[in-house]
Amino acid sequence: MEAEKVAQSPTAESIKVQLFLLNFILSPDVDVDLPPGIGQYEDFHTIDWQRDIARDRMRHRSILKRKNDSIIELIKGTHDAWSGWLCVFFVGIALGTVAGIIDIGAGWMKDLKEGICPAAPYLNREQCCWSSNDTFFEGFHCLQWKTWPQLLGLTNLENFGSYIISYFMYTVSSVFFATLAALLVKTFAPYACGSGIPEIKTILSGFIIRGYLGKWTLIIKSLCMMLAVAAGLSLGKEGPLVHVACCVGNIFSYIFPKYGKNEAKKREILSAASAAGVSVAFGAPIGGVLFSLEEVSYYFPLKTLWRSFFCALVAAFVLRGINPFGNEHVVMFYVDYTRPWILFELIPFVLLGVIGGVLGSLFIKANIRFCRHRKESKLGKYPITEVVAITLITAILAFPNEYTRMNSSDLIKLLFSQCGIADQSDLCDYNRNFTTVNKKLFAIAEAGPGVYKSLWLLILAVIFKFVITVFTFGIKVPAGLFIPSMAIGAIIGRVVGIIMEQIAFKYPNWWFFQDACSTGLNCMTPGLYAMVGAAAALGGVTRMTVSLVVIMFELTGSVNFIVPLMAAVMASKWVGDALGNKGIYDAHITLNGYPFLDSKEEFTHTTLAADCMRPRRNEPPLAIITQDSMTVDDIDNLLKTSGHNGYPIIVSKESQYLVGFVLRRDLSIALMNAKRTMEIYENTKVIFSGGHTVSPGPGPHPLNLKRIVDFAPVTITDQTPMETVVDMFRKLGLRQVLVTHNGRLLGIITKKDVLRHIKQLSNEDPESVLFN
Amino acid sequence: MEAEKVAQSPTAESIKVQLFLLNFILSPDVDVDLPPGIGQYEDFHTIDWQRDIARDRMRHRSILKRKNDSIIELIKGTHDAWSGWLCVFFVGIALGTVAGIIDIGAGWMKDLKEGICPAAPYLNREQCCWSSNDTFFEGFHCLQWKTWPQLLGLTNLENFGSYIISYFMYTVSSVFFATLAALLVKTFAPYACGSGIPEIKTILSGFIIRGYLGKWTLIIKSLCMMLAVAAGLSLGKEGPLVHVACCVGNIFSYIFPKYGKNEAKKREILSAASAAGVSVAFGAPIGGVLFSLEEVSYYFPLKTLWRSFFCALVAAFVLRGINPFGNEHVVMFYVDYTRPWILFELIPFVLLGVIGGVLGSLFIKANIRFCRHRKESKLGKYPITEVVAITLITAILAFPNEYTRMNSSDLIKLLFSQCGIADQSDLCDYNRNFTTVNKKLFAIAEAGPGVYKSLWLLILAVIFKFVITVFTFGIKVPAGLFIPSMAIGAIIGRVVGIIMEQIAFKYPNWWFFQDACSTGLNCMTPGLYAMVGAAAALGGVTRMTVSLVVIMFELTGSVNFIVPLMAAVMASKWVGDALGNKGIYDAHITLNGYPFLDSKEEFTHTTLAADCMRPRRNEPPLAIITQDSMTVDDIDNLLKTSGHNGYPIIVSKESQYLVGFVLRRDLSIALMNAKRTMEIYENTKVIFSGGHTVSPGPGPHPLNLKRIVDFAPVTITDQTPMETVVDMFRKLGLRQVLVTHNGRLLGIITKKDVLRHIKQLSNEDPESVLFN
Repeated sequence: MEAEKVAQSPTAESIKVQLFLLNFILSPDVDVDLPPGIGQYEDFHTIDWQRDIARDRMRHRSILKRKNDSIIELIKGTHDAWSGWLCVFFVGIALGTVAGIIDIGAGWMKDLKEGICPAAPYLNREQCCWSSNDTFFEGFHCLQWKTWPQLLGLTNLENFGSYIISYFMYTVSSVFFATLAALLVKTFAPYACGSGIPEIKTILSGFIIRGYLGKWTLIIKSLCMMLAVAAGLSLGKEGPLVHVACCVGNIFSYIFPKYGKNEAKKREILSAASAAGVSVAFGAPIGGVLFSLEEVSYYFPLKTLWRSFFCALVAAFVLRGINPFGNEHVVMFYVDYTRPWILFELIPFVLLGVIGGVLGSLFIKANIRFCRHRKESKLGKYPITEVVAITLITAILAFPNEYTRMNSSDLIKLLFSQCGIADQSDLCDYNRNFTTVNKKLFAIAEAGPGVYKSLWLLILAVIFKFVITVFTFGIKVPAGLFIPSMAIGAIIGRVVGIIMEQIAFKYPNWWFFQDACSTGLNCMTPGLYAMVGAAAALGGVTRMTVSLVVIMFELTGSVNFIVPLMAAVMASKWVGDALGNKGIYDAHITLNGYPFLDSKEEFTHTTLAADCMRPRRNEPPLAIITQDSMTVDDIDNLLKTSGHNGYPIIVSKESQYLVGFVLRRDLSIALMNAKRTMEIYENTKVIFSGGHTVSPGPGPHPLNLKRIVDFAPVTITDQTPMETVVDMFRKLGLRQVLVTHNGRLLGIITKKDVLRHIKQLSNEDPESVLFN
Repeated sequence: MEAEKVAQSPTAESIKVQLFLLNFILSPDVDVDLPPGIGQYEDFHTIDWQRDIARDRMRHRSILKRKNDSIIELIKGTHDAWSGWLCVFFVGIALGTVAGIIDIGAGWMKDLKEGICPAAPYLNREQCCWSSNDTFFEGFHCLQWKTWPQLLGLTNLENFGSYIISYFMYTVSSVFFATLAALLVKTFAPYACGSGIPEIKTILSGFIIRGYLGKWTLIIKSLCMMLAVAAGLSLGKEGPLVHVACCVGNIFSYIFPKYGKNEAKKREILSAASAAGVSVAFGAPIGGVLFSLEEVSYYFPLKTLWRSFFCALVAAFVLRGINPFGNEHVVMFYVDYTRPWILFELIPFVLLGVIGGVLGSLFIKANIRFCRHRKESKLGKYPITEVVAITLITAILAFPNEYTRMNSSDLIKLLFSQCGIADQSDLCDYNRNFTTVNKKLFAIAEAGPGVYKSLWLLILAVIFKFVITVFTFGIKVPAGLFIPSMAIGAIIGRVVGIIMEQIAFKYPNWWFFQDACSTGLNCMTPGLYAMVGAAAALGGVTRMTVSLVVIMFELTGSVNFIVPLMAAVMASKWVGDALGNKGIYDAHITLNGYPFLDSKEEFTHTTLAADCMRPRRNEPPLAIITQDSMTVDDIDNLLKTSGHNGYPIIVSKESQYLVGFVLRRDLSIALMNAKRTMEIYENTKVIFSGGHTVSPGPGPHPLNLKRIVDFAPVTITDQTPMETVVDMFRKLGLRQVLVTHNGRLLGIITKKDVLRHIKQLSNEDPESVLFN
């Protein structure tokens, strides 16, 4: 009792002592005395944000303290202060370069399917034609560039034969590329498959997956992205670029121990890197930052916002220097619509949003069902066979239709574009009267037969793309979903746009066209509908909003269409949410059982901490440690018989007041170390108590392990509503909280318990949460 | 002991009972039995976010439960679900309208200083000239519009006389407008003065200032903003528009009880409204959302992000419909630079950033010093005299210089613009050789005498503006800082730009110009320098970064200059931060002693909760309540003798284990109510304990007040590092935490204690924190 009173009003002295001890535990620079490994995490475990951030501040303070000692320390201190900016700068430069290489490589491989540049095989078709100084080239076909039939000397074949050879070469090269990608992924980096965004989200929320962001993943994913895109599969390289960006961020963070050695701090760099990933994927730095903020990041302080922006900007700038798109405009799908939109058009735009939401929802359901089937059935055992099969089907079905044969990005660009005067494609086959004045050239006109043919082909294309993407997203090659879903949306948008345009042409005087169409000018741009449709479909699948709108307008360079985009994207999100499922990334997180505590979902139940806490009533009591009455043998037994990741420390069995918390990993390391270096007997007492010393009783000298005890565990009372508990877990980034009643320990709630509790309340299988 | 054991393993029954009780406390819909006033806040107090949000969820649940009862309840439930979106929609529409009225009114009043439209006095000059169908008007002077000398029949005066009359009318009308504004503010709405952003930041961080967002403030601030701008004072109406937006948000939130009756939920609407405020101020919806996120908001969940975007968009759309700027472009300062920037120019851009940072820092120091002087000296007692004096000085000094006489917005527009061919102003007086080919027209040219004259006038203008703004920001009229600081930066930028341009003209072959200048094309746009300078100066004053860049590019409509803007803004922020002070808004918050816990500042000290906690060692012990041994008289005495806002409840004096926490306000209301309605004696026992019932001892029947007790107060141990405590305060929005050691209550830490502790550690006066 006396001892407790001392602790109750801590003197400055006792505080200093405890501070010193805290320093020992938390600072990697001073814990020379602590065995290595303490404070690290195991694979597939959740990190403790508070502890990591406290560790970093300790480190920061020790640097500040030593700053005045010598010039070297001063330089070290300055370097430390700048290292965050420096790190994201390097990440930006490296990522810009990597993205440039990937863009160029993918372009080259894509063209390789149709032909080669015999004079310089390392050039793609466009560069080949540039280098030839050939004035005659139309649609990027020039004399320098040889298609496979030409190269095989089969130029004098009739059209059909040439077609068959192209078809064959297309299919063979597709399957070759895809197989190579699948083999590389399987052999060298199994984590390189898929989009990676669900895992990045989980990692950023504070989870350890070793090797997921390693150098092999980076190399193999970069390479296989090019192969998979070149294989003509219905996938994009934009999503995986976020994963690649995080790999780059992870690798560079190891140059700066401040970030490399601290999992919580490392996530600041990863957040910035993921922003830069979207920035280079779409040339959209601000959209990237918002994507990182809205979609992937968990802990996003303002400092990270600034660094993310800087990183995204540097990456975009470097990529622009490499100029892989080879055009003047920095943006991918530059649009230059001459006509404004009219208010009435908001109705079709919202309609597109609704379609996007419904299709997105359907897509997620179908895809998740197939992925679950793959996981549970034999199918999952033959990933390479699956890739080959999907590629074969894709190639065979895609080739005959020009809109599915072409690259998805090119398709989107085509669908977004306005029909020019000299445009000779089917999509622009309007019956224009060229004798009228120049001004009338962009007026709406009657669609010719080419447009109707395109319409049918586009409708076939959208059905094919939708079905094949359901099966493609989830195969064991790098596969992004941005471009395929945008392509699907753009097709639907263009179709709706053409229909609207023809209605406006035929009935230009309907009042809701507001006289805009009566002159035939300023009325209905099918390309704008394609743009809105693309945004709506992507919104339906990913449930992004603000970042998506910003990405779209950075992607197209047009600031004037925020309202249509916003209307469609919001409609898409609302419809998707109303149809009752989550975005594709969250759905995949659930599918894989990752411990992700979504900060977007509100906890709306009336349960209390007591309902979620363990042990439950029919369970064995909590495994606990008393502060000064357990022996080494007791602890060894406890570690053997229980598998918990940590143990609360209480005053004594009789008076169960909470003292602190110790992690299993730290405890076993400290014990092992003590056994190795000190004289320890089975009946040696182990002391975990805080401020005061206990008079050594009979028996050997006790082992004092208070250095590894966390004397400030987060505690709540059993009456705390679960919504507050969930909020604390989210906002403070906790691993566990201890539950007390009137100061006495009742139980513990871990992140896994919370997740299972949430699942249970929403009538899902709580056992689907797999990790701690 | 037996009773405690029951509580230790709560049965389902006891949980249900407690839940029911919790319901009683928290839900405004079911607390029919609780006296009114419980759960409300007093003026100048901090709100409890967790409690308010829990209250809202309780309310939400009760609506969900009743949803199936009847169709009316179903409609109510649906209305409730949509009310957030509906509310921000209304806010957007109302704000767009208000902003349109303010823009038009300010324009009209501004022109009123120079003349009037006798045919239609309600029209401003531009509209007057439009309505006249007068083909002859140059620089917006037309026959229909009469200047004051013209109207007074003094047209046949010589130039000098006319000038004197204009000068006189300008000064008189300025003083009249300013005095009127000051009188209106003083009489009707004292809160309507200043920019309002510091207070908005504090309110959004969870503070109550009654009347600050009321209807009178809205009306008077809107009116006086026009007057103050028209008075030609060195201030803008963009900052105050954020305040006006929040007033609109506050007023509309009362239509929806979900928001109006819940302070925490109301702040979601206010966050969205402040985004809309910037959106209408600059026509920058995305910049507005980022401004709300980066600068003003505190609690910003993703749902608020979406609603903010929606609100900002609606407001911008409505304002665009009103079209107060009267031009085709939605943006305020539309630029259309034909020349790209070259890499070398980053050096002057960063230099502008450094200048902006230094000037911003200087400005903040000077302004805060003057504001403190005003507060502490007699000056503060004569606000109207001060306004009159400042206006008089401004008017007299500003009139002779054309760049200070013109409206700041017009000046910025002028400085941003590129010199056209027909541009005859002094600023564009270049010795161009018009005989060369058309292409050369935009080439750089030698500056003529007019440019040099302008340079001197601009330098005089910037000195005048800087000095007068220091004194103006803080007087008792609505006063924003965005436009004056942008004007100062734009002047400096333009001056630097012209110097750079002339260097490039004279030495076009220097290697770092990268051949861009040798042809004379594509080289140096002084307007771009003005734009970068404006961003840098604004960044130096406000320390905004990402939102500022986005606002700048939405403001100018140019996406191509993100990198120069970003470089300058980052440089400005770094220099400003290095010079060791906060942004102007944070500085004003500190000056006013508001309890604002900045989430941007990191807490880097090594103190523990024990160091910050009260009571300190030499202080009287904590005022506490025991759970079942105090009488009504004891409680009355406690309330009389202590002034704390809340009291911890412990098991008993002997066993100080924490049970719960009760608020002073709730306690006194409950006690008063009980005295009125029940038989209460002085020695009646008051019971605060939770689950178990106590056998009634001798004496009168005890008064049970457990319904007002919070049985889940947030607790920490005395060993918790203060950084974790600060983090918890910030992220969970706490009012206080209770400090325990091994389950026993040691003390309490309130938000005020934390703020004072931070001040003390940074060697500031802890007593400057005034409110709880």
